[in-house]
Amino acid sequence: MPALTEILTQTELHRSLLEEALRHLPLPVVPAFGSAENLHAVEFVATGETVTTGSRGRVAELFPCTVAVAAGRVLRADKALATAVTGKRVAVLFSGGPAPGGHNVVCGLKQMLGAGNVLLGVQGGPKGLLAGRMAPVTDADVAVIRNTGGFDFLGTDRTKIKTAEQFAQVREVCVKHEIDAIVIIGGDDSNTNAAVLAEELFADVHADGRGVQVIGVPKTIDGDLQLEELLPISFGFDTATRVYAELVGNILQDSRSSLKYWHFIKLMGRAASHVTLEVALQTKPAVTLISEEIAQRKQSLAEVIEQIAQTVVARAHKGIHHGVLLVPEGLIEFIPEMKSLIDELNDGMAQHETTLSSLDEAGKRAFVGQQLSAQHVKLFASLPDYIQDMLLAERDSHGNLQLSLIPTEQLLVDMTRQRVREIGDASGIKIPFATQSHFFGYEGRCGAPTLFDAAYTLNLGLTAGALVLAGKTGYMASIGDIFSGGVPLAIPLAGLLDVERRHGSEAVVIEKALVKVDAPAMQYFVSRREAWAQDDLFASPGPRQLWGPVARQVPVSVALNRGAESLAFRFGD
Amino acid sequence: MPALTEILTQTELHRSLLEEALRHLPLPVVPAFGSAENLHAVEFVATGETVTTGSRGRVAELFPCTVAVAAGRVLRADKALATAVTGKRVAVLFSGGPAPGGHNVVCGLKQMLGAGNVLLGVQGGPKGLLAGRMAPVTDADVAVIRNTGGFDFLGTDRTKIKTAEQFAQVREVCVKHEIDAIVIIGGDDSNTNAAVLAEELFADVHADGRGVQVIGVPKTIDGDLQLEELLPISFGFDTATRVYAELVGNILQDSRSSLKYWHFIKLMGRAASHVTLEVALQTKPAVTLISEEIAQRKQSLAEVIEQIAQTVVARAHKGIHHGVLLVPEGLIEFIPEMKSLIDELNDGMAQHETTLSSLDEAGKRAFVGQQLSAQHVKLFASLPDYIQDMLLAERDSHGNLQLSLIPTEQLLVDMTRQRVREIGDASGIKIPFATQSHFFGYEGRCGAPTLFDAAYTLNLGLTAGALVLAGKTGYMASIGDIFSGGVPLAIPLAGLLDVERRHGSEAVVIEKALVKVDAPAMQYFVSRREAWAQDDLFASPGPRQLWGPVARQVPVSVALNRGAESLAFRFGD
Repeated sequence: MPALTEILTQTELHRSLLEEALRHLPLPVVPAFGSAENLHAVEFVATGETVTTGSRGRVAELFPCTVAVAAGRVLRADKALATAVTGKRVAVLFSGGPAPGGHNVVCGLKQMLGAGNVLLGVQGGPKGLLAGRMAPVTDADVAVIRNTGGFDFLGTDRTKIKTAEQFAQVREVCVKHEIDAIVIIGGDDSNTNAAVLAEELFADVHADGRGVQVIGVPKTIDGDLQLEELLPISFGFDTATRVYAELVGNILQDSRSSLKYWHFIKLMGRAASHVTLEVALQTKPAVTLISEEIAQRKQSLAEVIEQIAQTVVARAHKGIHHGVLLVPEGLIEFIPEMKSLIDELNDGMAQHETTLSSLDEAGKRAFVGQQLSAQHVKLFASLPDYIQDMLLAERDSHGNLQLSLIPTEQLLVDMTRQRVREIGDASGIKIPFATQSHFFGYEGRCGAPTLFDAAYTLNLGLTAGALVLAGKTGYMASIGDIFSGGVPLAIPLAGLLDVERRHGSEAVVIEKALVKVDAPAMQYFVSRREAWAQDDLFASPGPRQLWGPVARQVPVSVALNRGAESLAFRFGD
Repeated sequence: MPALTEILTQTELHRSLLEEALRHLPLPVVPAFGSAENLHAVEFVATGETVTTGSRGRVAELFPCTVAVAAGRVLRADKALATAVTGKRVAVLFSGGPAPGGHNVVCGLKQMLGAGNVLLGVQGGPKGLLAGRMAPVTDADVAVIRNTGGFDFLGTDRTKIKTAEQFAQVREVCVKHEIDAIVIIGGDDSNTNAAVLAEELFADVHADGRGVQVIGVPKTIDGDLQLEELLPISFGFDTATRVYAELVGNILQDSRSSLKYWHFIKLMGRAASHVTLEVALQTKPAVTLISEEIAQRKQSLAEVIEQIAQTVVARAHKGIHHGVLLVPEGLIEFIPEMKSLIDELNDGMAQHETTLSSLDEAGKRAFVGQQLSAQHVKLFASLPDYIQDMLLAERDSHGNLQLSLIPTEQLLVDMTRQRVREIGDASGIKIPFATQSHFFGYEGRCGAPTLFDAAYTLNLGLTAGALVLAGKTGYMASIGDIFSGGVPLAIPLAGLLDVERRHGSEAVVIEKALVKVDAPAMQYFVSRREAWAQDDLFASPGPRQLWGPVARQVPVSVALNRGAESLAFRFGD
């Protein structure tokens, strides 16, 4: 028997007890592909469904090849391919921030391509593709990365491939490495890139006139890449929200154990509030802010603060001096007056650059306070000094404020504290308001995938591989009917594109899917939140389980929005 | 079938799917108590072991009754009690910060006391005891709290019971509620309190001359309440470190996925570095600082920074621009020159209070810079402004700096950045050093207990109950032989006490158990850390599992220090 120290050293390099056990965890495969032991490629046939946006006319002009072929029609997996496809060389890459389950996409892809085709792993994201950094993915590789979190097998980056020079580089790399297809695992931006590349590489890449197929796989923990029944959710969202929900649940229990703190918790998710809504549905804290609702109601910052302060005061009157507040990372931009203030500051700071550069921080604040338009003077003055300083800090290369640097959770703490004190002073009753603030983000992007994300991504990888073998290009892989067996789908990427005018030129984008305030998940949240504010009704979802009675769950918001009867997904079995 | 919204509303109030499933998770019981289905109380007999400290003479004077009875001897559970004990009224309370597993102590206690005795739950910790806030704990209560995290069933606080007036209040409450015994679930301070109360209430509380028994239960996520074989670890440490280790593991994977950040992570644990060492053993990051080792080596802050910077530079030379650093919450006080500087500042600020109060922050920094003794001038000047400001900020009511407010992780980031830049400038090579910083603390104190903590605390509760039924007082419950079946132990609290002189008067304390730099856990860490620094060898322990193949683990440091052959504990079965 090896000594304990030897056992411990053997856990280095991704061989923790859990990682080792997870490598042998069986995952369900959707019926279209046969079974895990006996996989087969499939034909894809058109469904009755089409996807399109208001920009379809302009998109058809910009993406003639892929639009003509797909015609906006969603495909679904059909019968097994009659003849085995072999000899294909397929490159796969991660793009953008990591999300749990990415490794299983690679596993699924490798399994579907089988021994007859070659899978090349591109190192370091789109930048690695441009540089031609890639190496064959082996069966041994996929045995190691199976069911592990992170994108660390290949690494990732955020390079956008958009210039003529970059396209030429990609063509050159495709020729050099004899690539037949590229699978891009990424979010809205990366799938936009995939759409552009699919069109760009449609034909005439190789000497014989062949093009290079491009397939996207929908990844983002933010959950802002989703499309009703066709794409119930992007992968990684389930795991990330379960990681955050455990932490929020733990803090809720701490708040009621220690009986003295309000915890203000900011959650990752850039623009959309999907992550925050999901975590709220799982944990039921006293206050949850949903950016999209605040924008729709055109609430002012003061109104948001008033709403929080009133909850603090109402609970205090019942002797409850603790609570938890959830705030989405993107809140500030969704408060109309804040957005308008920031826009004015962005313009004004460019205009008065010289004057401002000669002033110290207090001087800057005073100068800007005088220059601001009447509607923003009071708002600006109401902000704590450190926020004013941040709003006047250096802009990024596009002249924009780096909003992600603003500590929204601390801003809310400080402004709520002031308002709670005012209310206390007015009533002559001191209201205790001790606080802690948190930001959960990086903790959730690379966790071991939940059983849902693990199975979902494996099947997304199988679908992407099947699309490659079926000769398709310009599609995003998806799995529909996740509550009733699972069906591989292919969504035409061009059908998702919008064309926007930005700084005078055209930009092609996949619009981020925001939280819909009238969707079932939001409606259910609204129906319960008043009760959650008044008293502690929270639950603690705890650490996600890969074995045992509660392993098979999907996000609550996904189940509600899809009209599911339970939280359990069903693939195949 | 209920609608999904109905199912979701049923999860409110601690009824998440996991919490419901955990209530039915069977837990092993140590053989001394029979079996989970058929528990029996036991006699306790003296072992050959005794516990004592250098202060034993003075302790014997201060604690005559409890010392005379226990004589420092450790007891262990023996044969079943011949006659059932009934009619006892036992109060239980949480004291200090919450720790996972506390609820199961209450469950075990309730089970051992059975239907023949009454268990009273004290609300809100020692303060609640003084106020006499308590209510009977029912079988329905323990069915609900079983295997759930947090102290929220009863709440907790940090009141110290030490004045004559407080003792009188406790006596009065004991008489009023006819209390025969008090079980205090707490850390070093709370168990010191338990020792004091055991002596104080030894006799003559009730009209018939009877005293009130007092039993302590060793809780703290910090792990600084441990005693070799007799008390392998306090409860809660395993769960908290597993929560942090998952997050650190996720961030390690993120660092190697995104390939651009160094994450500096501060971990809770006040003085001792047990938590940090354990998390390092589980995750194997590039750099881990252990306060006790730094103190032993008498390292300066500059030396600590140099060590970090050299690792950053060495990895950069290999093209690795990412990494993770772990730092224990208590680091600053363990750097000898920092402790000495803070002591001088504490004295100096009291002396120059009037002058300082007339100065702004820059003025304060300049004035103090002049007043400092030669040995501290350079150190003080080397600190970032915001740290200088914090060092000169208002003291607490004892005239001491509130060290917990110092953002050690940010201090290390900023000083490392400066040093890395200097090294880069000297060599003419720019070294990338982008950073993120984190503090993990509250996230781990109330998580759902691991299988070890759940089973350990249930058996600690059974032991505490058995000690009450056996008529014992002044003992701390423990479980020995955790790798070979488990044996209930009773450690005489007075034997753990040290007497210190503080501000001219005597203080009785249980010394915190610090990390021993020559213990096996530390030695193993030292043997591997250079390899972990040079390249990514990390592992990701992932979310703790309550079912499946990897549920049965203990902390790595505990297994190493106890000379165990594996990480698996064994209670009974």
